[in-house]
Amino acid sequence: MITRRIAMAASALTAVVPISAPKAAPMTQPALAPTDVTLRLARHIVAAKAADLPAPVRHEVSRALLNWIGVAIGASRHETIEIALRAIKPFAGPPQASLLGRNDRLDIMNAAMLNGISSHVFDFDDTDLSTAVHPSAPVAPALLALAEYRPMSGSDFVLAMAMGIEAECRIARAVVPPHTDIGWHPTGTCGVFGSAVAMSKVLGLDENRMAHAIGLAATQPVGIREMFGSMTKSFHPGRAAQSGMLSAFLAEQGYTSSDHGIEAKRGWANILSTRQDYTAITDGLGDQYEIMRNSYKPYACGLVVHPVIDGCIRLREAHKLTPAMIARIDVDIHPIVMELTSKRTPATGLEGKFSVYYAAAVGVVAGVAGERQFSDAAVKDPVTVALRDKVLPKIDSSLRQDQARVRITLTDGKALDQFVEHAVGSVENPMTDSQLEAKFKDLVAGIIPAGKVQYLIDLCWKAETLKNAGDIARAATA
Amino acid sequence: MITRRIAMAASALTAVVPISAPKAAPMTQPALAPTDVTLRLARHIVAAKAADLPAPVRHEVSRALLNWIGVAIGASRHETIEIALRAIKPFAGPPQASLLGRNDRLDIMNAAMLNGISSHVFDFDDTDLSTAVHPSAPVAPALLALAEYRPMSGSDFVLAMAMGIEAECRIARAVVPPHTDIGWHPTGTCGVFGSAVAMSKVLGLDENRMAHAIGLAATQPVGIREMFGSMTKSFHPGRAAQSGMLSAFLAEQGYTSSDHGIEAKRGWANILSTRQDYTAITDGLGDQYEIMRNSYKPYACGLVVHPVIDGCIRLREAHKLTPAMIARIDVDIHPIVMELTSKRTPATGLEGKFSVYYAAAVGVVAGVAGERQFSDAAVKDPVTVALRDKVLPKIDSSLRQDQARVRITLTDGKALDQFVEHAVGSVENPMTDSQLEAKFKDLVAGIIPAGKVQYLIDLCWKAETLKNAGDIARAATA
Repeated sequence: MITRRIAMAASALTAVVPISAPKAAPMTQPALAPTDVTLRLARHIVAAKAADLPAPVRHEVSRALLNWIGVAIGASRHETIEIALRAIKPFAGPPQASLLGRNDRLDIMNAAMLNGISSHVFDFDDTDLSTAVHPSAPVAPALLALAEYRPMSGSDFVLAMAMGIEAECRIARAVVPPHTDIGWHPTGTCGVFGSAVAMSKVLGLDENRMAHAIGLAATQPVGIREMFGSMTKSFHPGRAAQSGMLSAFLAEQGYTSSDHGIEAKRGWANILSTRQDYTAITDGLGDQYEIMRNSYKPYACGLVVHPVIDGCIRLREAHKLTPAMIARIDVDIHPIVMELTSKRTPATGLEGKFSVYYAAAVGVVAGVAGERQFSDAAVKDPVTVALRDKVLPKIDSSLRQDQARVRITLTDGKALDQFVEHAVGSVENPMTDSQLEAKFKDLVAGIIPAGKVQYLIDLCWKAETLKNAGDIARAATA
Repeated sequence: MITRRIAMAASALTAVVPISAPKAAPMTQPALAPTDVTLRLARHIVAAKAADLPAPVRHEVSRALLNWIGVAIGASRHETIEIALRAIKPFAGPPQASLLGRNDRLDIMNAAMLNGISSHVFDFDDTDLSTAVHPSAPVAPALLALAEYRPMSGSDFVLAMAMGIEAECRIARAVVPPHTDIGWHPTGTCGVFGSAVAMSKVLGLDENRMAHAIGLAATQPVGIREMFGSMTKSFHPGRAAQSGMLSAFLAEQGYTSSDHGIEAKRGWANILSTRQDYTAITDGLGDQYEIMRNSYKPYACGLVVHPVIDGCIRLREAHKLTPAMIARIDVDIHPIVMELTSKRTPATGLEGKFSVYYAAAVGVVAGVAGERQFSDAAVKDPVTVALRDKVLPKIDSSLRQDQARVRITLTDGKALDQFVEHAVGSVENPMTDSQLEAKFKDLVAGIIPAGKVQYLIDLCWKAETLKNAGDIARAATA
């Protein structure tokens, strides 16, 4: 009781501190202590230059951008978006920015939120495998919306996106796994930092104001895991994109916050995790780039079933298989696969994502496993259903999670074997640029005009050379 | 590593669940388990009727409303608001709702946020002493903004405000003190529930959709204590008001969330506290009302120094004291007072709030201690400074925190004693209605036209009888 009273009294005593007028940048910056985590991060990002980014980093930003735009356009007509748009539209501001895959335009705050939601509806966006952060969804929507409102070069866009991803993934690495185990959804809780930092970089905030933008982000963590399985999961990166954007605009105008939002005793990391490894945030800045660990999903379902799909597609292609040729499909899998995807007779697209039987069959029948292959209609296709019933999974505890062994026995008795060492999309076996293009084309088909598809792909590949990054947004509409 | 991989895989497997079309309300509601905390709360609030509210509860809503509008108008020209408005305005929607104390109009989402910030800039708003939640700041701004956009009766407004406060304070009681000790600012983290519930009540959401609004609120906790001492502290109730409003609008349109956002294993209470007493949320609903514990601050500074100011004002009034009559002021105080407010020579208004010397002097000189008495100019007033140097505090550990003993010795040698048993504004000695009116008048003077002040006060007192609660907002502008 005493403790509470003191805390309350102390709280009641605090008040707004006066802000100082913007100053000219000092010739030499004040020294920072190793414990000044927020300020060290801010200082690095303020100083970062496009020319410093290694070519593979710049190319990886293009890959992330292409993948992100594809999944966001792909989900842009989903009822999740229709509902959110209905809820928000009466209160939205001027038509400043595009909704990807649509013809609606909203103010940039709401556009960032809606495009952030679209990014994650299919759960098909990029993943930082070591933290489970989906890096692009909270960052790219904020940046792209801003690019339509306040023109920025492609080079600035690429740098800001790299820096946003740098911040959110490093901050996540400082606090996982306990952060996630406690129940937070790091794509939202860490993503808000990514958005705030990327926005602050483009707005040209100085070190102090960028630290305050980070502080404002720290006080707005969004996303708890109880929401998985509902539309609220995809709300997380959407609100994170918007909250980070708001943080940057407030800080830009001089709204004050803490310089120690991440590391303070009652700061973000201590409150949201039982583990704080601040070296993950401050070590190797500018030497290692988080985006180089980024991974992309080739198949629109849980990662655990990817090796099986992979093996089936490889055999299909190597032997020009058709369903009629096949007598049975044996798959040896890691135990987790049966734990999570043991549904024998999926009745909906969503159930199809939880069926290793369906996943193997669709790999053989379609040769791809995009969102389209997990529609309610697709899982009822008679040819695929017939093949699905010939799939025989067997648990093999000696396999890693990204491995699988597939044996397809033909009606003529011949057996075809495929061992998958690393599924496509793993860090060891990343999707190629052309695989990313194919995924993109599959996602956007029928949503944006066919004539614009290759143009948009090209814009992503040459993003860093664009005069105006907003061109990407304008090309991504319906 | 395995654990993380599994979590990630599971995450990657989840997807959006289809929503069902709205159904007609069933004749009998499904039974709820005692563990269905979110649904029990939602069911109670859906069923609540204005006619069920006891008269003292309705009157307390008017008191909270009057106090809240006063502090929000009082802070409406503070640089915190100027900055936030500059940051937000370019992206705001149609001019649907008023900013209190100003002539600006914004869309209701942004108006709720800005008015929520104004509510807390002075830290002079109402307090639930057992949880340190400031109940009105996250709830009233959302409701009042909505009232201008979608007309609602005063009776509906009063009921919704009572229900919002009910939800946020009960949820806070379930998780404090650990929730606050960990570092959360419950006015933001719990306030978002207050806003979501109040909005959902007025929008007429059914039990399921109200539960989803609560779920959306649960995933957006705002406010960490590291931000105390900066403008970001007052951002917390502002963003909470807006996030709750957004939650309600999303749920209204069918955006899905969890039915167990509060109590689930990876729900709000388990993630944000080490203590979960769900009976604080579900017991006695409709019998006890949280707003009956609400308290209002008479003085614009920390609670610990209130008993001293109280004693000084009582002696001033009883003996018609003027500074020239006074030789010395002895004050016996609880140890916490010297711990927090020992500044001898405050140079700014903010420092004045941390000076028991100044506080005692200003009580005698001014007879009030509002925000005006804690301005930079006021603390330099020569008469008050001279008297301040005659204040002699002494620690008395036998005193409670809301007690003080004041002895004023006159220049003629006569000594006047005043023992304060409970400071004004404590639950045992609440501010009277006329004291609330005086506080209101002091706060709004010079900001809204003098001719509107009494009219606005009267609107608050008769809030429950208004045809259109939006009249209050329109009367509260400059």
